[in-house]
Amino acid sequence: MGSFDAIKQAAFTANMDLFKSGLVIATFGNVSELDKGKGVFAIKPSGVPYASLTVEAMVVVDLACTVIEGRLRPSSDTRTHAVLYKNFPGIGGVCHTHSPFATAWAQAKRPIPILGTTHADHLTQAIPCTEVMSDETIRGDYETETGNLIVRCFRDLSPREIEMTLVACHGPFTWGENAQKALYNSAMLEEFAKMAFLTTQINPGIQPLKPTLIEKHYRRKHGGDAYYGQINVTMEK
Amino acid sequence: MGSFDAIKQAAFTANMDLFKSGLVIATFGNVSELDKGKGVFAIKPSGVPYASLTVEAMVVVDLACTVIEGRLRPSSDTRTHAVLYKNFPGIGGVCHTHSPFATAWAQAKRPIPILGTTHADHLTQAIPCTEVMSDETIRGDYETETGNLIVRCFRDLSPREIEMTLVACHGPFTWGENAQKALYNSAMLEEFAKMAFLTTQINPGIQPLKPTLIEKHYRRKHGGDAYYGQINVTMEK
Amino acid sequence: MGSFDAIKQAAFTANMDLFKSGLVIATFGNVSELDKGKGVFAIKPSGVPYASLTVEAMVVVDLACTVIEGRLRPSSDTRTHAVLYKNFPGIGGVCHTHSPFATAWAQAKRPIPILGTTHADHLTQAIPCTEVMSDETIRGDYETETGNLIVRCFRDLSPREIEMTLVACHGPFTWGENAQKALYNSAMLEEFAKMAFLTTQINPGIQPLKPTLIEKHYRRKHGGDAYYGQINVTMEK
Amino acid sequence: MGSFDAIKQAAFTANMDLFKSGLVIATFGNVSELDKGKGVFAIKPSGVPYASLTVEAMVVVDLACTVIEGRLRPSSDTRTHAVLYKNFPGIGGVCHTHSPFATAWAQAKRPIPILGTTHADHLTQAIPCTEVMSDETIRGDYETETGNLIVRCFRDLSPREIEMTLVACHGPFTWGENAQKALYNSAMLEEFAKMAFLTTQINPGIQPLKPTLIEKHYRRKHGGDAYYGQINVTMEK
Repeated sequence: MGSFDAIKQAAFTANMDLFKSGLVIATFGNVSELDKGKGVFAIKPSGVPYASLTVEAMVVVDLACTVIEGRLRPSSDTRTHAVLYKNFPGIGGVCHTHSPFATAWAQAKRPIPILGTTHADHLTQAIPCTEVMSDETIRGDYETETGNLIVRCFRDLSPREIEMTLVACHGPFTWGENAQKALYNSAMLEEFAKMAFLTTQINPGIQPLKPTLIEKHYRRKHGGDAYYGQINVTMEK
Repeated sequence: MGSFDAIKQAAFTANMDLFKSGLVIATFGNVSELDKGKGVFAIKPSGVPYASLTVEAMVVVDLACTVIEGRLRPSSDTRTHAVLYKNFPGIGGVCHTHSPFATAWAQAKRPIPILGTTHADHLTQAIPCTEVMSDETIRGDYETETGNLIVRCFRDLSPREIEMTLVACHGPFTWGENAQKALYNSAMLEEFAKMAFLTTQINPGIQPLKPTLIEKHYRRKHGGDAYYGQINVTMEK
Repeated sequence: MGSFDAIKQAAFTANMDLFKSGLVIATFGNVSELDKGKGVFAIKPSGVPYASLTVEAMVVVDLACTVIEGRLRPSSDTRTHAVLYKNFPGIGGVCHTHSPFATAWAQAKRPIPILGTTHADHLTQAIPCTEVMSDETIRGDYETETGNLIVRCFRDLSPREIEMTLVACHGPFTWGENAQKALYNSAMLEEFAKMAFLTTQINPGIQPLKPTLIEKHYRRKHGGDAYYGQINVTMEK
Repeated sequence: MGSFDAIKQAAFTANMDLFKSGLVIATFGNVSELDKGKGVFAIKPSGVPYASLTVEAMVVVDLACTVIEGRLRPSSDTRTHAVLYKNFPGIGGVCHTHSPFATAWAQAKRPIPILGTTHADHLTQAIPCTEVMSDETIRGDYETETGNLIVRCFRDLSPREIEMTLVACHGPFTWGENAQKALYNSAMLEEFAKMAFLTTQINPGIQPLKPTLIEKHYRRKHGGDAYYGQINVTMEK
């Protein structure tokens, strides 16, 4: 068994789960899983249809994006993943989709407001939307700069409390302790985006959820006083 | 066979049917079934994915929410279920979802107006939306207070004629004679919410259905003159 | 073999196809098929879930709605079907759904404008929406009056060219040469309703399709100069 | 093996894939594949349901639309396909659907603005929408004129860079190097149409993507500097 088999298997499974989730069509999207000890991650090869994806086709790269194992080119978004791994301590998975509701908010250049407890169960703020990238930066190392744009957007935010963002004009990136959690966050983000879309259509003047409710719901699931879920049971896939 | 097997099986089946219904994703939602004689109910354990749910994992609690049988923590919404069982005489099942259209109306803090006969076939009024919980109450026993909020919202309403509500900023709760009927009501509520959304988008000035039509459709299905369905046949799942 | 087996089988198949189509949920909807020679039709029994429907459960009634064969009550909408069979010469099937987009236009009390060639391939006008029923009539024989409302709406329209309508505040009824064609028309109506919804959201000032385009598309499929489809092949299910 | 077997098989597979894609219902839509050497193409027969389609039923016609092989009438849109094959050098497949979001933009007589990188990954401009056909032309050879309308719309556009269009009041046509690529483009177009719909609902004042971002994303996938996908691997179905 090769030394990268675990992350290749984890990345493969998460990419296949992404496809089955209905969040992406065609070759859209990619998920990666980091080996925190070795500082390398496994990611989907670029432009390969999900139907013909295999564990063996996964590409292993280091944080400088040098291919360590694999015969195919890694996803064109690989450098964005690498920037997130380097700057967001403790994360072990990154997921990128073009899911329609989240992408629509990104294209509208609008953060997704926190309007209900579904959202507050997971994070305490609006889903941030990055700045639009400057022309100079676009002409540079574009995928690295996409990562930098996200990192800059999180200057005053905690990437461990808010494990998701919208890249303006582009679409969502999410992350988490591993690839499955990053994928889970992509599914949640799409649901928040859909609910926020419907809510603002029904009541255009709606205001964000009040702080006490946000705090209460977030604390039900996170931190020392959490009482959602089981104590010694893995809960979420 | 244990003395709680019947309600555990009923609650398990309703929770699995909830997942198959498409009304919820991930670990969202929960359904419970009451044993009216024993004053105990079976409910989904907290945060367990539907794919790994079993009959044995269902948790049996009494109306004070003490665990009577089961090794796992009950759903974090258990105390809300208990308040409904204690205050709404005759009900035997409660269902909670975050289905997107109903949740959007709840987030918009708007009751769902009665705009057509699909809605009037089931109840004679708008689906009520509770007040937003006060800050003092949020800091207290939150899930019990969520139940109290619903009960207060039904001060002047009949919970046997209107077996569903929206909790403002949160989402829908429904109930009925058993878990399956509560689940059925959640599916109906989502359909009314979707139709009301589309209707108000098409005609923002639309007025509620007139009383004669409401009365007629409701009486077709309910009360002594009902002529919908079969006399001696169980009709609805 | 009983003398009503053919229409019972046709009605059963069309009702099951209705359920599989996704146009209805729960026990919503009903389809009937007429035996033109005998003046009787087979229809779904009232309130029976599709999952437990059988050919034997179909109810055969005459045009006065007297049950001729079958142990169950016929659909509560049976009298509406009968009025259509009596007043729209040549039709052999009727279908009623609560499909969401068509029902939303009915609840909005708006005809569905003819905005494109998908619609014009099938009929040359807006899908009419009936008047709202008067209070006196609602208190009378409601289902017969629903049929009368539709017939009155077609005073100046041809029910063979426009095989569908919206009943205001209620939902769609469609018909055709047999149950399958009536069901096909319900699916088409839902598609026109969805496209018209999206179109008017994108361009609220959109005007109806111009008469030359309507005429051209309708003539491609209907009348002596039709050139869509095969000459001796049954085309549409 | 007949000399047209390859294009008949390709056209059959693409038509069946079109149906499975969910982009069309009933008998809507058609895909064709061209034999560039022989100057003939295989297309779906008119009005035949997808469920009963076979390879043998595919109709082979030349660019004058004379039937070369096949017992059935070709699709009523055949002459539109022929015009595109004659005027857009190098294309080998054409696809026509009535997918709801793309059709809604066509009915709204609006080009689909380029609002994000999902769109820019595939083409650098808004999806054009043709003029509405003149009354004189409608009364002529309508399907040929539909093709002419598209060709005229591409006077100043490259049909190899923009492999899709909306025909005003009608719906989308797409093309590509073969039938599968044309079908892929129809699926992409529907996704762009859906995202643009949601985006403009969220932010009605949204402006098109800026040129530098359009250029960057398009160049990632197209031209000599492309770095998306694999060098020697067929990527997209």
